[in-house]
Amino acid sequence: MVPRGGNSRPQAVQGRTMPDMIPDMIPETIIPLILCGGSGTRLWPLSRKSYPKQFSSLLGEESLFQMALQRLSGPGYGAPVIVTGSDFRFIVREQMAAAGVTPGAILIEPGPRNTAPAILAGVLHVAQADPGALILVAPSDHLIPDAGAFRAAVAAGVPAARSGRIVTFGIAPTRPETGYGWLDLDGVPDGTTPLPLRRFVEKPDAARAAAMLATGTHAWNAGIFLFTAATFLAAVRAHAADLMAPVEAAVAGAARDLGFLRLAADPWGQAPDISVDYAVMERAANLSVVPFAGAWSDLGDWEAVWRETGAGGATHGPVTAIDCEDSLLRSEAEGLALVGIGLKGLIAVAMPDAVLIADRSRAQEVKQAVAALKAKGVRQAEAFPRDHRPWGWFETLAQGPRFQVKRIVVHPGAALSLQSHMHRAEHWVVVQGTARVTVDAEVRLVTENQSVYIPLGARHRMENPGKVDLVLIEVQTGAYLGEDDITRYEDVYARGQGAKG
Amino acid sequence: MVPRGGNSRPQAVQGRTMPDMIPDMIPETIIPLILCGGSGTRLWPLSRKSYPKQFSSLLGEESLFQMALQRLSGPGYGAPVIVTGSDFRFIVREQMAAAGVTPGAILIEPGPRNTAPAILAGVLHVAQADPGALILVAPSDHLIPDAGAFRAAVAAGVPAARSGRIVTFGIAPTRPETGYGWLDLDGVPDGTTPLPLRRFVEKPDAARAAAMLATGTHAWNAGIFLFTAATFLAAVRAHAADLMAPVEAAVAGAARDLGFLRLAADPWGQAPDISVDYAVMERAANLSVVPFAGAWSDLGDWEAVWRETGAGGATHGPVTAIDCEDSLLRSEAEGLALVGIGLKGLIAVAMPDAVLIADRSRAQEVKQAVAALKAKGVRQAEAFPRDHRPWGWFETLAQGPRFQVKRIVVHPGAALSLQSHMHRAEHWVVVQGTARVTVDAEVRLVTENQSVYIPLGARHRMENPGKVDLVLIEVQTGAYLGEDDITRYEDVYARGQGAKG
Repeated sequence: MVPRGGNSRPQAVQGRTMPDMIPDMIPETIIPLILCGGSGTRLWPLSRKSYPKQFSSLLGEESLFQMALQRLSGPGYGAPVIVTGSDFRFIVREQMAAAGVTPGAILIEPGPRNTAPAILAGVLHVAQADPGALILVAPSDHLIPDAGAFRAAVAAGVPAARSGRIVTFGIAPTRPETGYGWLDLDGVPDGTTPLPLRRFVEKPDAARAAAMLATGTHAWNAGIFLFTAATFLAAVRAHAADLMAPVEAAVAGAARDLGFLRLAADPWGQAPDISVDYAVMERAANLSVVPFAGAWSDLGDWEAVWRETGAGGATHGPVTAIDCEDSLLRSEAEGLALVGIGLKGLIAVAMPDAVLIADRSRAQEVKQAVAALKAKGVRQAEAFPRDHRPWGWFETLAQGPRFQVKRIVVHPGAALSLQSHMHRAEHWVVVQGTARVTVDAEVRLVTENQSVYIPLGARHRMENPGKVDLVLIEVQTGAYLGEDDITRYEDVYARGQGAKG
Repeated sequence: MVPRGGNSRPQAVQGRTMPDMIPDMIPETIIPLILCGGSGTRLWPLSRKSYPKQFSSLLGEESLFQMALQRLSGPGYGAPVIVTGSDFRFIVREQMAAAGVTPGAILIEPGPRNTAPAILAGVLHVAQADPGALILVAPSDHLIPDAGAFRAAVAAGVPAARSGRIVTFGIAPTRPETGYGWLDLDGVPDGTTPLPLRRFVEKPDAARAAAMLATGTHAWNAGIFLFTAATFLAAVRAHAADLMAPVEAAVAGAARDLGFLRLAADPWGQAPDISVDYAVMERAANLSVVPFAGAWSDLGDWEAVWRETGAGGATHGPVTAIDCEDSLLRSEAEGLALVGIGLKGLIAVAMPDAVLIADRSRAQEVKQAVAALKAKGVRQAEAFPRDHRPWGWFETLAQGPRFQVKRIVVHPGAALSLQSHMHRAEHWVVVQGTARVTVDAEVRLVTENQSVYIPLGARHRMENPGKVDLVLIEVQTGAYLGEDDITRYEDVYARGQGAKG
């Protein structure tokens, strides 16, 4: 399967970390199991509950999720299995399509249950086809710039994983970090040679972190694991047996839904809400650690992002920084000019609907600030300007007492449900592409520079029968303009009355 | 004329500054001459060339200009004469109407020429009707919270002005300010009793400012003057004779234009570009100073605004400030959430298209930052999101490669020109009010929730025949969407081909 000495992907790997014989060490397919259900707020306003950081182009053109997909593809890797939340399923599919990656499966968690149930569900799904499959569990929101070096580390772990070990990856620490869990290694790292794990160390205090950094035999726990399905299932049975019944039932009862695999909600809700570290890894005796000396970050807060984008005044977007030091200045919109003057040690992230300015040393307090916004009922605490739906996305351009203007983008082949509204009429003006529009009994094509009027109460549907995105401007008028004023008659995406979109 | 002891305006005045006999001291009408042509950038992004700070609601509901109008109205004050630039004339009229103040005249400067020609033009205009008229010259962009106390100071200056003195107002200094000019008084201020002026002191260094503050016989020069037209004209003839001919010719040749008085451009352009302080005040011997102990600020930069809005974390708009000190945090839009965490000594001003974050001690560098933006061709350096026109205003809501969406507001009774476009078609959806729309030969009324299509090339016009603002959403489609794609056939505002709006 693997062409000797050949590889279609560009390799940024040094001989030190990927010797010539490495390709021979991937004699079988590794299934990436990518955890994509997180909804962290510590990178607010870029990361919000409705569009969390793994989907954002935080560093570079692609999203962190897309970078994770690319990192775990190529020779030796199979189609990835994604575990995500219901709200994110269409974003996942869209970003995978844009990245040119075909999923093995997209599992939908009926609700967030932490990493242990999520990983177990993915492993059980893979094991249905191949109980001996090699699985690499990886978060979707971390940064590992040198993908080739990381794949070399994964390759170095394959023999241990195949022999029944749970392989974890130990990041070479570069500072006495108190925000991560650490790994106590039984030996001194030498390249990517696996070492036995002595024990996990939970987030340490500063003194303990400094002491561990000095030993040279400690590493950061990145939450990345390589094992066979059989090895992991045995570990769960041994150390977290109460997980097995509900998650097995949720997987067995999963429903196929538009290409997604929706886990059964009832048993899923009975699974303990617990991390894989607590449930399994800290109890298992068969762990090995593959050291990884390359750069890695969990991008856990803006301080971490600042660290990755370079000290001394990192900027992103249309920013004018005058005499700024040790600051991260980001404008997240093309039409939003951000000017900083004489700033020191500051984080500033500007979006058209929300701006964060924080002292860098207090980046971790963003989470509490978002909680405070949420308590005040501020929409931006959780909602993103763009609202992603099965058929595309929309955003509100303007709102008045009795009107609302939206930009709506419908992907090729997609369709909105057949619906009607009790309290509003709609004007649609097509500005790109072609729409097939149904209004009561009439169906017609509406193309660029044409408009349609949807009277209050009319049954209507919009489809994109074309090959390019359909873009239209919708002007709503009426006394009540809430998203829940919707009656659905038919919906290819199987959503109910008053549900989103 | 002045009702004894009665006044329809609410008075926040203390007995100390406005004794009971004050109304008797205003036996004649004072004509306010309000300078409204400035286009400062030191309060960017709130103040921009196209919509400078005097028109902004910087502090409170009303704009600074409206506050100046209110301050100089009531018993004893005549209809104000406004001097402004051509770009601002409709904003001036709109804000005066909203404030319920009828202008005596609105003079339009064909180009900016500094304060001496502007004041001279206003004085010459007033003198045409009454050479002995009492005139109070005042900037439109300063803050004087206690209007009653200020009017009392003006009243105290009337006898001196009537006797042929040029009366200036000396603000009691509260700090060794190096950013203002100072007045050296011949005596110690006692209430509002006029004192002779020894001399002007240009912006001093810190030591000189501290020394003047310590004397108790120095005051800040606020650029506010009270004199008769004859006194001022004599002073100009004596000290700045070269001003007289071009400005007299500009006033004599002024054209009436929709209720504005547009000064003749050719002679105006020959007037020296000079401030009234340099040209006249620093040379004249007949100056008196009325001390003013009330609060005053030129709001010259964000540091000055911070000082007026209170130390210790002043906020404006939807701001969440967590543990912020000595900072000014402003969000200028309802839908823009600004969060500050752990900030000290910072200015932050957020708008949907521009954000400024500056160390407070460097507020004066905003001017250079805006110059840098302008050099980079950044639209926001000078342009405001809302574009004010004779008939109302518009703003761009969204822009794409071949489309643009605008919100257009047309005031009651106003009309856009009869026009056509070569490169774009337009869809109009009325969301508030009623429009009278002409498309080629057809004229019809379009009301809320109705739409009109304007084909490429069609002659069209929109009017608001109603009693409330007309609000419509315009969707433009076409290959070229510039404002200059316009052919005008009739325009009640006498604008030409390709000119704005």
